[in-house]
Amino acid sequence: MKAQRVDMFVCTMGTPADTSGLQLLADSGRIKPDTLVALVGKTEGTGFHDDWGRVWADVALREWTAKFLGIPVADVAKNVREWVEVPDSDAGEKRLVVGRAGSEAIAPEEVGRMGMMHKVAAATHQAMSDAGLSDPHDVHLVMVKVPGLTVASIRDAEQGGHTVVSHDLTFGPEGAGSYANDAAALGVALALGEVKESALSDEVVRRNWDLYSEVAMTSSGGEKRHGEVVVFGNAASSLSELRIGHAVTKDFIDAEGVRNALRSAGLKFREGLPDESDLGRLVHVFAKSVIPGSDQVRGNRITLLDDADAYQIGKALGGMLVASVTGRTTNYVSGGEGNSHQGPPGGNIVAAVVRTA
Amino acid sequence: MKAQRVDMFVCTMGTPADTSGLQLLADSGRIKPDTLVALVGKTEGTGFHDDWGRVWADVALREWTAKFLGIPVADVAKNVREWVEVPDSDAGEKRLVVGRAGSEAIAPEEVGRMGMMHKVAAATHQAMSDAGLSDPHDVHLVMVKVPGLTVASIRDAEQGGHTVVSHDLTFGPEGAGSYANDAAALGVALALGEVKESALSDEVVRRNWDLYSEVAMTSSGGEKRHGEVVVFGNAASSLSELRIGHAVTKDFIDAEGVRNALRSAGLKFREGLPDESDLGRLVHVFAKSVIPGSDQVRGNRITLLDDADAYQIGKALGGMLVASVTGRTTNYVSGGEGNSHQGPPGGNIVAAVVRTA
Amino acid sequence: MKAQRVDMFVCTMGTPADTSGLQLLADSGRIKPDTLVALVGKTEGTGFHDDWGRVWADVALREWTAKFLGIPVADVAKNVREWVEVPDSDAGEKRLVVGRAGSEAIAPEEVGRMGMMHKVAAATHQAMSDAGLSDPHDVHLVMVKVPGLTVASIRDAEQGGHTVVSHDLTFGPEGAGSYANDAAALGVALALGEVKESALSDEVVRRNWDLYSEVAMTSSGGEKRHGEVVVFGNAASSLSELRIGHAVTKDFIDAEGVRNALRSAGLKFREGLPDESDLGRLVHVFAKSVIPGSDQVRGNRITLLDDADAYQIGKALGGMLVASVTGRTTNYVSGGEGNSHQGPPGGNIVAAVVRTA
Amino acid sequence: MKAQRVDMFVCTMGTPADTSGLQLLADSGRIKPDTLVALVGKTEGTGFHDDWGRVWADVALREWTAKFLGIPVADVAKNVREWVEVPDSDAGEKRLVVGRAGSEAIAPEEVGRMGMMHKVAAATHQAMSDAGLSDPHDVHLVMVKVPGLTVASIRDAEQGGHTVVSHDLTFGPEGAGSYANDAAALGVALALGEVKESALSDEVVRRNWDLYSEVAMTSSGGEKRHGEVVVFGNAASSLSELRIGHAVTKDFIDAEGVRNALRSAGLKFREGLPDESDLGRLVHVFAKSVIPGSDQVRGNRITLLDDADAYQIGKALGGMLVASVTGRTTNYVSGGEGNSHQGPPGGNIVAAVVRTA
Repeated sequence: MKAQRVDMFVCTMGTPADTSGLQLLADSGRIKPDTLVALVGKTEGTGFHDDWGRVWADVALREWTAKFLGIPVADVAKNVREWVEVPDSDAGEKRLVVGRAGSEAIAPEEVGRMGMMHKVAAATHQAMSDAGLSDPHDVHLVMVKVPGLTVASIRDAEQGGHTVVSHDLTFGPEGAGSYANDAAALGVALALGEVKESALSDEVVRRNWDLYSEVAMTSSGGEKRHGEVVVFGNAASSLSELRIGHAVTKDFIDAEGVRNALRSAGLKFREGLPDESDLGRLVHVFAKSVIPGSDQVRGNRITLLDDADAYQIGKALGGMLVASVTGRTTNYVSGGEGNSHQGPPGGNIVAAVVRTA
Repeated sequence: MKAQRVDMFVCTMGTPADTSGLQLLADSGRIKPDTLVALVGKTEGTGFHDDWGRVWADVALREWTAKFLGIPVADVAKNVREWVEVPDSDAGEKRLVVGRAGSEAIAPEEVGRMGMMHKVAAATHQAMSDAGLSDPHDVHLVMVKVPGLTVASIRDAEQGGHTVVSHDLTFGPEGAGSYANDAAALGVALALGEVKESALSDEVVRRNWDLYSEVAMTSSGGEKRHGEVVVFGNAASSLSELRIGHAVTKDFIDAEGVRNALRSAGLKFREGLPDESDLGRLVHVFAKSVIPGSDQVRGNRITLLDDADAYQIGKALGGMLVASVTGRTTNYVSGGEGNSHQGPPGGNIVAAVVRTA
Repeated sequence: MKAQRVDMFVCTMGTPADTSGLQLLADSGRIKPDTLVALVGKTEGTGFHDDWGRVWADVALREWTAKFLGIPVADVAKNVREWVEVPDSDAGEKRLVVGRAGSEAIAPEEVGRMGMMHKVAAATHQAMSDAGLSDPHDVHLVMVKVPGLTVASIRDAEQGGHTVVSHDLTFGPEGAGSYANDAAALGVALALGEVKESALSDEVVRRNWDLYSEVAMTSSGGEKRHGEVVVFGNAASSLSELRIGHAVTKDFIDAEGVRNALRSAGLKFREGLPDESDLGRLVHVFAKSVIPGSDQVRGNRITLLDDADAYQIGKALGGMLVASVTGRTTNYVSGGEGNSHQGPPGGNIVAAVVRTA
Repeated sequence: MKAQRVDMFVCTMGTPADTSGLQLLADSGRIKPDTLVALVGKTEGTGFHDDWGRVWADVALREWTAKFLGIPVADVAKNVREWVEVPDSDAGEKRLVVGRAGSEAIAPEEVGRMGMMHKVAAATHQAMSDAGLSDPHDVHLVMVKVPGLTVASIRDAEQGGHTVVSHDLTFGPEGAGSYANDAAALGVALALGEVKESALSDEVVRRNWDLYSEVAMTSSGGEKRHGEVVVFGNAASSLSELRIGHAVTKDFIDAEGVRNALRSAGLKFREGLPDESDLGRLVHVFAKSVIPGSDQVRGNRITLLDDADAYQIGKALGGMLVASVTGRTTNYVSGGEGNSHQGPPGGNIVAAVVRTA
């Protein structure tokens, strides 16, 4: 039978362009060109438009990967990993599988609207079957990258007689980036049945916060024309030693929500707290840190929403919340934006991957 | 006999000048003019030199207190609370007591040096006896405010033929504010026997980080001429319903260190985690959030030390670490500065006050 | 006849709450309670939501003014100055006059739309006649404060079946504050004939930058329900010793545009540059510093638009441009926001008041 | 005879790693590998420690230059340009010449002290003779890069029984970077006779602001072990079409000081202002924008010194002051630090290069 044997590695970077950790994995044979699935990175820096660290990191990672795969840099994003033929098995316990899919082209006028939701939903279904997943309950993380808007794409759309969702190119409350991320999240929610199609319309995006996904982590970029979806879940057919789970925090300071994600992945810890040996089996945590839409946390006012540095501080705070539980700083924490359909109102998504043996 | 019956109240402010919470406490009779010990506040805002919120808060709190006490605003800082005569008791269990003392005048040339350490140490001893405390192990928190340096005081000192510890008026690594805070912390450490006098000299300040106090939280201001010390501890003679304890975190993400402070104050929680009823007895937490001097946390590099917003983010991260344990955002968290003799290298001080009944 | 004898004074503040300069003017009799027209202030600080300096300044100025006028603080904004009876005159040369008017109530659904434009235009006409001005060419500065949107006013409007222009409460590209300011500017442009009514619609706001006013400086606040308009112009009936003029800069570095405003006000300077005696007659400059919508200045790319601190830096740069011409730092420079109908694309409005004798 | 024919080109970069402008100059033959003297760059970005744009730019420029010169990247900094043999001449008018020299190794304990001053002074004399300059009055710009301090070099020095000038690795008031830059500036001032040797000592650095250079622009980096000096001046032997001049601003808003630098370089403009044809001959301006040590500018308080973003805003303000005169944004403006021996108290250095024909 065809089955996956997925593994996941976390390596740190000394600078935005440091690929030595990847090279070590390659030299040791732990990653191979023909079975590389995806690279997910976080760069140090401000994360603002004028933060060139992430651009430099992107350039460096693409160059390294192209060299590793023996393909042109331009093809790196396109590369899709091969399945490996493995002996039959009937591992009773479900293990980690990963599936990928690209969506149909998404037009500027569809960004942040129903058009984007439908195309992301379709791509999510493809990625699930690519991963051998059929039951939405087996899906614990869906990472999506969709097109955003640019000055040029807005002009094209309007010259073609279309309107666009926003002229704000930022990730602010009415920013095109926020609308794109949130329509993508609702597309995932639609695909997984977290939200009914009848409840969706252009008008609900960034308006009706009761509609959300508990597993969608989405981002957008002006340079893209298609959506890219990577689904992480557990399947009986998997030969991986890893298992994934997820949970949501109930508010911005809910460390128990982070612990629940670890439990969901199968990390058992007595005494309410994981001990060092428990955490030794933790491979990685993926978390969002969206700033709540309300300035009330458990009945008290927080001032973060009025903070000029809320974007950076909000992201850092999520990092600390996760680190306070995992006992390490090398967690994947994305966010800083205000309010989102990624996770419930006030809360955030946390996914965890653990080694079963 | 003479004994204390100390209570502690935490109220939130809607703006930097909001005294409505204090007024409610006054109207309900829970605080009285003749027994008010101290006001400790935290203001929203950037905390930078151009953050007028704290100035406005200071003005508003002084005006309110002067009105409440029926004294001139200028005398508010001087006011010392009376002891109350209470029926004898031999409460076996030690409870919260508070003591205050002012130090001798500290000259500019003494700021950040041995002169300041000795005068703060003497004032700490006075404050301990004022609180009825003799054993340093009963002291769990010492809040100190000392003089810093100003353009004017530096000129006076140098015209008098003296040198000063720094011309940097900031709280940077060589800033006069940092030297003042750290000499004050070492003064407390000297008074409590945490550091031997033979180990102290002008040269060790902000150089030998192995010398530190586990209970000193210090700050400095250019306007002051004397040091002010407030000691919090537990004494058998106390009739308070409160008890204080403390601990230190072992590093910047050590939530267990925060829980240890709660345990030290007598908050028992099975299961490694306090439940809601446990936390219902938690009155307040006082914590430092000093940015570590090293960029290594549990073997991984952190980028905080190079962050242009490290001051604000470092303070916010401490707030999240404490909130993730206490389940509330209304904790007192001071810091953001880099490296300090307040707490061990890489770690921070946490003090907790709990209600015993 | 009834005529104005308007004077204008500029005083600096040592802190956001410093009213000593006003008190000096009052003590010397240069300002009188019954003829005070308006206070216009600029406060130090970040200018962000969490900048409490401007709130503190507002409180302090209202308290001082209420005391000065002998009225309740709540009535300060309402106060309208009396006209003074003065001997007839036929001063050939036109001099400074000031007129004020309040608009009809502006509903949340009108904010940033035609409704706001029409009401501001009407109030501008009233303020002109209040000032004794009929010819739009005699109007050189129109300061307008209009209602913005708030969480509460948006909810009210939507529960009433209305839509609002934006859910973004910031001054970003799609922010309600930006729409409010720009609709107000277009209202002034409509009143003065700078823009034809036929060219206006809800759709052109923050879309068609070819529509703009050369004299409107507008701001908005969520707390307001009506628009407030103050018109500055020159009239033959005026007995003032002051004269006002204005010009626009052609781009972000156009110092000549600032000099043109001084010339427009009647400041003659040979040699292309005003000398000290010329500048001695300069009373005050009011300027906008809107960040250009394009990143091209005279054929070269600027990076300001991508700068995380663009709001503060953009405002500071306008301050330097004006100071480099006026030889003083006490100019009124408003802005920092991106793109606006206040002034031409890429350029900014500058108004200058000079003493004629 | 041997003579220089120096030319200077300014090209803009679309990103920190954009070398297309250099490639165009190379393709057109205007710059040649064997006569390249120096590259001086300014990168977009925050300029803070976590600004990776400048690192990326440095990497990209070194790679391009190594390729252009056909040498290893490591040798790029070492490369010294050849002199070209040219026909005799007795050009009466002095024109631009450039000279370079490296200093002796500067030990950590010499950084920011007399040792650094003497070695920079000696290197400045060598660079002058390299340029064929003997009269200090012909020197209009001296760019210096010297070693700073690092955690490692401080440890080495102290283990060797030496002290260092500061443990503050920043460019703050007591920062090692500031001391290094200022000792280098005083070294230039010593070499040019702007300051007498008898007036110099370790104690005057960053203390006696009456000692300064009017032509030294200095920077420092922890990675360096030697000082590097590039001198720009005018010599009769030069066959260059360019001429350099300089002036200082009298305060932070002194546009006339910038114009004086243009005049000093020989740019004649009637009417107090350069017209477009005048500015067509302007090749480049090099300016410092040091934040004044006093908060008083022409009798009024400025708030820049208390601004948390003073470093970035101070640099931007200098850029605007120069741009308001040159009519272009592509000027070289360095600074943002507070107070310096580079230029007089409150003022800044401006050097200008103009084309004579």
